[in-house]
Amino acid sequence: MKTGITHLYIPGPTNVPDDVRRAMNVPMQDMRAHDFGAQWLSLYADLKMVMRTTEGTAMLLPGSGTAAWEAAMTNTLNPGDRVLMARHGQFSMLWVEMAQRLGLDVIVVDVPWGQPTPVTEFARHLAADRAGEIKAVFATHNETATGVTSDIAAVRAAMDGAFHKALLFVDAVSSLGSIDVRMDDWGVDLLVAGSQKGLMCPAGLGVLGISPKAMEASKTATMRRAYFEFKDMVAMNAGGYFPYTPPTQLLHGMRAAMDRIKAEGLDNVLARHARLAEGVRRAVAAWGLQLVAEYPVNYSNTVSAIRVPADVDARDVIKIAYDRYATSLGSGLSQLAGKVFRIGHLGDLNEGMVLTALAVTEMALSEAGVNIRFGSGVAAAQAWFSTGRSAQTPAIAAE
Amino acid sequence: MKTGITHLYIPGPTNVPDDVRRAMNVPMQDMRAHDFGAQWLSLYADLKMVMRTTEGTAMLLPGSGTAAWEAAMTNTLNPGDRVLMARHGQFSMLWVEMAQRLGLDVIVVDVPWGQPTPVTEFARHLAADRAGEIKAVFATHNETATGVTSDIAAVRAAMDGAFHKALLFVDAVSSLGSIDVRMDDWGVDLLVAGSQKGLMCPAGLGVLGISPKAMEASKTATMRRAYFEFKDMVAMNAGGYFPYTPPTQLLHGMRAAMDRIKAEGLDNVLARHARLAEGVRRAVAAWGLQLVAEYPVNYSNTVSAIRVPADVDARDVIKIAYDRYATSLGSGLSQLAGKVFRIGHLGDLNEGMVLTALAVTEMALSEAGVNIRFGSGVAAAQAWFSTGRSAQTPAIAAE
Amino acid sequence: MKTGITHLYIPGPTNVPDDVRRAMNVPMQDMRAHDFGAQWLSLYADLKMVMRTTEGTAMLLPGSGTAAWEAAMTNTLNPGDRVLMARHGQFSMLWVEMAQRLGLDVIVVDVPWGQPTPVTEFARHLAADRAGEIKAVFATHNETATGVTSDIAAVRAAMDGAFHKALLFVDAVSSLGSIDVRMDDWGVDLLVAGSQKGLMCPAGLGVLGISPKAMEASKTATMRRAYFEFKDMVAMNAGGYFPYTPPTQLLHGMRAAMDRIKAEGLDNVLARHARLAEGVRRAVAAWGLQLVAEYPVNYSNTVSAIRVPADVDARDVIKIAYDRYATSLGSGLSQLAGKVFRIGHLGDLNEGMVLTALAVTEMALSEAGVNIRFGSGVAAAQAWFSTGRSAQTPAIAAE
Amino acid sequence: MKTGITHLYIPGPTNVPDDVRRAMNVPMQDMRAHDFGAQWLSLYADLKMVMRTTEGTAMLLPGSGTAAWEAAMTNTLNPGDRVLMARHGQFSMLWVEMAQRLGLDVIVVDVPWGQPTPVTEFARHLAADRAGEIKAVFATHNETATGVTSDIAAVRAAMDGAFHKALLFVDAVSSLGSIDVRMDDWGVDLLVAGSQKGLMCPAGLGVLGISPKAMEASKTATMRRAYFEFKDMVAMNAGGYFPYTPPTQLLHGMRAAMDRIKAEGLDNVLARHARLAEGVRRAVAAWGLQLVAEYPVNYSNTVSAIRVPADVDARDVIKIAYDRYATSLGSGLSQLAGKVFRIGHLGDLNEGMVLTALAVTEMALSEAGVNIRFGSGVAAAQAWFSTGRSAQTPAIAAE
Repeated sequence: MKTGITHLYIPGPTNVPDDVRRAMNVPMQDMRAHDFGAQWLSLYADLKMVMRTTEGTAMLLPGSGTAAWEAAMTNTLNPGDRVLMARHGQFSMLWVEMAQRLGLDVIVVDVPWGQPTPVTEFARHLAADRAGEIKAVFATHNETATGVTSDIAAVRAAMDGAFHKALLFVDAVSSLGSIDVRMDDWGVDLLVAGSQKGLMCPAGLGVLGISPKAMEASKTATMRRAYFEFKDMVAMNAGGYFPYTPPTQLLHGMRAAMDRIKAEGLDNVLARHARLAEGVRRAVAAWGLQLVAEYPVNYSNTVSAIRVPADVDARDVIKIAYDRYATSLGSGLSQLAGKVFRIGHLGDLNEGMVLTALAVTEMALSEAGVNIRFGSGVAAAQAWFSTGRSAQTPAIAAE
Repeated sequence: MKTGITHLYIPGPTNVPDDVRRAMNVPMQDMRAHDFGAQWLSLYADLKMVMRTTEGTAMLLPGSGTAAWEAAMTNTLNPGDRVLMARHGQFSMLWVEMAQRLGLDVIVVDVPWGQPTPVTEFARHLAADRAGEIKAVFATHNETATGVTSDIAAVRAAMDGAFHKALLFVDAVSSLGSIDVRMDDWGVDLLVAGSQKGLMCPAGLGVLGISPKAMEASKTATMRRAYFEFKDMVAMNAGGYFPYTPPTQLLHGMRAAMDRIKAEGLDNVLARHARLAEGVRRAVAAWGLQLVAEYPVNYSNTVSAIRVPADVDARDVIKIAYDRYATSLGSGLSQLAGKVFRIGHLGDLNEGMVLTALAVTEMALSEAGVNIRFGSGVAAAQAWFSTGRSAQTPAIAAE
Repeated sequence: MKTGITHLYIPGPTNVPDDVRRAMNVPMQDMRAHDFGAQWLSLYADLKMVMRTTEGTAMLLPGSGTAAWEAAMTNTLNPGDRVLMARHGQFSMLWVEMAQRLGLDVIVVDVPWGQPTPVTEFARHLAADRAGEIKAVFATHNETATGVTSDIAAVRAAMDGAFHKALLFVDAVSSLGSIDVRMDDWGVDLLVAGSQKGLMCPAGLGVLGISPKAMEASKTATMRRAYFEFKDMVAMNAGGYFPYTPPTQLLHGMRAAMDRIKAEGLDNVLARHARLAEGVRRAVAAWGLQLVAEYPVNYSNTVSAIRVPADVDARDVIKIAYDRYATSLGSGLSQLAGKVFRIGHLGDLNEGMVLTALAVTEMALSEAGVNIRFGSGVAAAQAWFSTGRSAQTPAIAAE
Repeated sequence: MKTGITHLYIPGPTNVPDDVRRAMNVPMQDMRAHDFGAQWLSLYADLKMVMRTTEGTAMLLPGSGTAAWEAAMTNTLNPGDRVLMARHGQFSMLWVEMAQRLGLDVIVVDVPWGQPTPVTEFARHLAADRAGEIKAVFATHNETATGVTSDIAAVRAAMDGAFHKALLFVDAVSSLGSIDVRMDDWGVDLLVAGSQKGLMCPAGLGVLGISPKAMEASKTATMRRAYFEFKDMVAMNAGGYFPYTPPTQLLHGMRAAMDRIKAEGLDNVLARHARLAEGVRRAVAAWGLQLVAEYPVNYSNTVSAIRVPADVDARDVIKIAYDRYATSLGSGLSQLAGKVFRIGHLGDLNEGMVLTALAVTEMALSEAGVNIRFGSGVAAAQAWFSTGRSAQTPAIAAE
C-alpha cells in the first residue's frame, strides 16, 4: 500500500490546488436557472486576461484539449483546405494526424524532435504560396513531449513578412497560464488549451481563444460539426449559459483557478514557472544529463524532457519512481520511448515540490543504473532557489 | 440569501449522492501509470450490466450526451446517408437538427409532442424502402421534454418485420439506469446516454453502448471524425486507458454510482423509479392537471411534463418555486414554453424528496394563480407510497 | 439500501450547509504558525454578535456542549457552592446531575416537563436567600427535550428584584443562532452552547459566552479544572491561538457558518426560524395532536415535541420514518419515551425541508396507527408559508 | 500568495491522507438512530489492535489529547493522591502542571531535556515507597518536544521489581500508531493519545486505553469529573453510542485511518517510521548538527529535535521555511526556544516527503546563516532509502 502524498510531476494533468478542489465539490445546479449564467461571465473575462486578448473570444468546451483542437479546425476551415504544420514531437504529430483525418490537405514539415517550430521553413512555404492556398498555419507553442517552446511571435512575423492571410492556430495546451501567451500581440487566431495544465483544474474542459478574424471565418466555414459548433456556444455563452448541460463542477474549479492566478498576478505566475524550471535544468546539468530540447532559447518552463544514458531504459526510471517512491514522472513518447523521461513543472507548484521531484528522480536514476551522485541535482536547484530568494528578500525582518 | 437544501427536481442533471461526490474528490492521477487502467475495467462491465448487453461495447466519452449523439452518428454512417427519425419533443428535434448539420439525409416524421416514437409510420417507411436506402433508424426512448417513453421493442419489431438491416440508434439519455433499457433484447445498435441523469453523476461524460454490428460498421464508415473516433477509444479502453486525458474524477464518480446501483439491484432501482413516478402522477391527477404525455402506456418514470391552465404562465410557477422556495423545476421547452413545467423524478431519489417537490409545487402553482387545494397532491402521493409500503413491509417487528 | 437524501429533523446535530462542509475540508495547518491565529479573531467577534454581547468574551472549547457546561461551572464556582436549578426536561435534568457530580449543593426545583423555568419559584428562593448563599442561578433557555423556551429576561428580573448577586448560567445550546439570545440585555454571565445546532456545524466545539463578572469570578474560583481552564484559553485566544491543538476544521466551519448568518442577517435568521416553526405547529394542530409545551408563550422555534395518542408508541413512528422513509425524527427522552416524538426545525432550513418533515411524519404516524388525514398538516403549513410569502413579496415582476 | 502544497512537518497535527479527508466529508447523522452505533464497534476493536491490548478498553473522547490526560487522572485517582512524574521536555512538564492543578501530590523528577524517563530514579522512589503512597507512575513514551523515546518496559520492570501496585500512566500521544506501543506487555494502565498524530486524523478526539485494573479503580476514584466520566462512556460505547453528541466526522476519519493501518499492516507502519526517521537522522549527521536526544537508544522515530549553532536563532530557520518555502517545521519549546527546530516525521509519510523536508530545511538553515552544504543531508537520506530499498526489492522485473 502506498503511503503519503502521491507526488505528481507529469506535465499534466497537474496538481489541483486544494481550494480548487473545494470549489468543485458542489451539489448539482439547475443549468437553466435565471441566475445560473451570470456567475460565469467573469470567468470568460479572466480567461481572456490569461490569454492576453481583448478582442478575442474565450470559449470552454466540455471535452479534452483534443476536442478543442478539433473544434478550432472544423469551425474555421473548409473540407480539403491546405494547411501548414510542423511535426517535432508527439503532440504536434497527433495534431497533424487529426488534420489529415478531418480531410485537410496538410503540408507537413518534419523537424527533429527537440527543435522548435521551423519558422524559416514556414516562411519559405508562405512566401511560395502566391495564390494564398494555405488557409492556416499551425504552431505548437510548447511541445509537451520534448520540452520545447517555440517562438510564436516569429511565426507571426514570418506570416506578416509574406503578407499572408492564413489563420494562425496555436496549441498552448501546456503553456497557457505558465509561459507567456500573447494572443493579441502575436495575432493568434485560434488558441487551443485545456483545463488540466497551467489552469490547475481536472481534465474535462477544452479552452479556446478565438480572434475576430477566426470568428468571422466560422460563419462561412463548411467543415461538418455539431457538438463543437461555435455559433451555438457563442449565442448561449453571451448570458453565461451553454447549449447543452455543462460540467458545472469544472466551471467552479476554473473560477477558483482564475482567482488564484489573479491573486498571485499573471506576471508572477509566469516568473515563478521560469524560476522553478531553471532549478530543474540546473539539476539536469549537475547530473550530466541532456535535455531533448536542443537550444536553450527553446527550453520549456513547464516540462523538461531528459535523456538517459544509452545503456539505461528510461521506463525503468519511471517505474522505480512510481512503484518505490509514489512519484509519477512523464514518459518518453513514440520515438523517445525508453530514451527519455520528463519532469512536469507547471501549475500549482513551489520550490519544495520541485526539490521532491529532483530528490526522488536521483534515487530512481541511481537504482535504474545511472551513475548519479546523490544530492547533486538537488544542490544545484537549491543554490539557484536560495540565491534567487535572497536577492528578492533581503532581510527577514522586513518581511 | 437562500437557506437550506436547494431542492433539485429538474430531469437532469440530477442530485449526486453524497458518496458519489466523495468518490470524485480525489487528487489528480497519472493517467499513464501502469496501474491506472486496471481500475476502470469493472466500470465498463457494470455499464454493460445497466444497458443489459453482453455482446455490446460500453464507451465513455469526455463531453456531454450531445457529444455521444454525434459520436454515434459519425462513427457508423457515411456522408449523405438516409436515416429515419421522429420529431416529438425538444430532444428528438435537436437530434434531427444535428443529423442534418452533419450532412445526413433525414426522413423526418413529425408527431404531436406528447406522443411516442411513431412505430406504425416508421414501419411504413421501412416497408417502402425496398432498396435498403435507410441506413439508420433513430428513436428517443424517453423524450425528456414531454415525459414520454417510447416502445423500443416495437421499433425493433417493425424493423424486423420489414426485414430491414438499418442500424437502430436509441437515445436513452433520460432512461438509462431508471427505466428498463434492454440493449441486446431490443437489438439496439447505438445506445446513447450521459452521466448526469439516472447514472447520478455530474455532467461531463457521454455514455455509449455499441453493438457488434455498429462496431463493424465503424470500421468502414466515412463520416469525418477525430476526437470521437471509436477505433482509438476501443484500442485504449481495452486496458482501461484513454486516447487523451480523461476526466478521472468523473470516472471515480461513475464507479461509485455503479456500486450504488449494484447495491440496490438494478431491478429494484427500476421499480423504485416506477413507484416514485406513480406518486407524482397521482398528485397531478389530484390537482386536476394534465400530463403532456397523451397515453398512460407512455408515461415516463423519470420526468413528468405537466400542463398548467391556459390563463397561467408555467414560467411563473417555475420562477416562484425557485426564487421563493429554493426549488428547481424543469421548464417547458420550445412549443411548450410557458404551457408546461416538468418535475424530474430520477436518479438518487426517495419518497421524502418527491413529497418535497409536490408540496413546493402546490405552493408555486397556487401563488401563480392556479386553483389548487393545498395538500391534495401530496395526500394522493402519500396514500400511494404508504399503501405500497405496507404491502411490502407487513410488520415493524419483522424489519 | 437507502437512496436519496437522508432527511434529518432531529433537534441537533442539524444539517450542515454545503459551504460549511466545503470550508471544513482543508488540509491540516500548523497551529503555531505566525499567521495561524489572525484568521480566527473575527470568528470570536462574530460569535459575540450572535450572542448580542459587547462586553462578554466568546470562547470555543474542543468538546461537546456538555464540556461547555462543565467549563462554565468549574471556572467560576467553588466546591460545595449552593446553586439554584430547575428540572423540567431531559437536558435541565442532566445539567442538575452534572452540578451534583461536580460537588455543588443544588437547590433543585422540579417542574412538570412541558413547563418553563419556574421564575416565580426562583424568585421565592432568591428572596429567601438573605445571606447570599446561592452563588449561581441556572436556566435552560430552550429545553430541547420538551420544546419549551423559557423567559430569561424574567429570570434576570427576578434576580434583580431580589437584589441578588448570583451568577446567571444559561443553556442556549438549542437556541443560540435560532431564537433570540440577548446576553448583555439579560445579564447572562455564562452562556453555554455548541457548534451543532443553530450554528450549523458538526459537533465538536463547545461555545461559551462569559460576562466580565464571570471572568472575574474565574480568577478566584477554586473548583479543580485543567483542560477547561479559562485563563489558559483567554491568554492564547488573544492572538487567535489555543493552549492545545484545536480542531482546525471546525474553526473553518464555524467561520463559514458565521458568514452565512451575517449574509442572511441575524434578525432574518431568527424570523425565519419563527416562520418555519409556526408552520410545524399549524400542522400539529391540523393533525389534532398536542405539543408537550403547555403554554403557547413557550413554544420553541427550534424544536417541537409532539405527543402521540395513548395507544400508539412514538418509537414506532420514529422507526417507520427512519427505516421506510430515510427520515430522522427526534425521540422522546426519559419520562417522555414512547409518548413523544420531536421535529427539529433549526439551523440551515427552508420551507421545502419543513414540508418534507411534515409529509413523511404523516405517513409514519398513519403507518404507526395514528388516525391522520394525509396532507392535512402539510396543507396547514403550506397555507401559512404561502400567505406569509405573499405578504412579503407582493409581485413576481418586482423580484 | 503561497502556491503549491503547504509542506507540513510539524510533529502533529500530521498530514491527513486524502481518503481520511474524504471519509470525513459526510452529512450529519442521527446519533441516536438504531443503526448508528453498530458502525463504530469495529473502530474500538481496531484501536485496541493498534494499542496491542486485548484486555483493555479503548475510548474516544471528544476533545484534545490534553482532555484525555485529564480524563485518565480524574477517573482513576483520588484528590491529593501522590504520583510520580518526570519532567524532561515541554509535554511531560505540562502533564506535571496539570496533575498539580488537579490537586495531586506530585513527586517531580527533573531530568535534563534530551534524556528519557529516569527509570533508575523512578525505581529508587518506588523502592523507598514502602507504604505504597505512590498511587500512579507517569511516563511520557515519546517526548514530542525533544524527540526522545523512553523505555516503558523498563518503567514497568522497575515497578514490578519494587512489587509496586501503582497505576502506570503512559503518554503515547506522539507514538501510538508510529512507534511500537505494547499496552498489555508493558502493563500500561492508562494509555493516552490523540487523533492527530500517528492516527492521521484531524485534532478533536482524545484516545484512551484503559486496563482492567484502571477501569476497576475508576469505580471508586473520587476526583471530581462529569464530562470525562468513564462510567457514562463505557455504558454508551457498549453499543457504539456516546453519552453526548459525538463528532461523527472524526469517527468516520478514524475508521478510514484504521483501514489504512490494517491495509499496510501495523508492523509495516512501524518499520516505515523507523526507516524514514533514520533518513532524517543521517541528514542531521551529514549537516554536522546535533539532536537534542542524548542517547541513540532514545532517538524518536516520529520527531527529531535538532540544535542549531549557538550563533543562529532556530526561529529564523522556521520562519524562513514557512514564509519562503511554504514549509512548517516544529519550533523549540520553552527552554529550547530559539535553540532547536523540529522535523516531524510521522503519520502518512513517504520518502519523497522526508526528502522535501530535508531539502527545504537545508535552504532555510543556509539562509538563516548556518554553514550547510546544499544537498548534503538529502544525499545521506537518499543513500539510506535507496540502499534499504534495493535490499528489499532485488529486481524490477520481480515487482
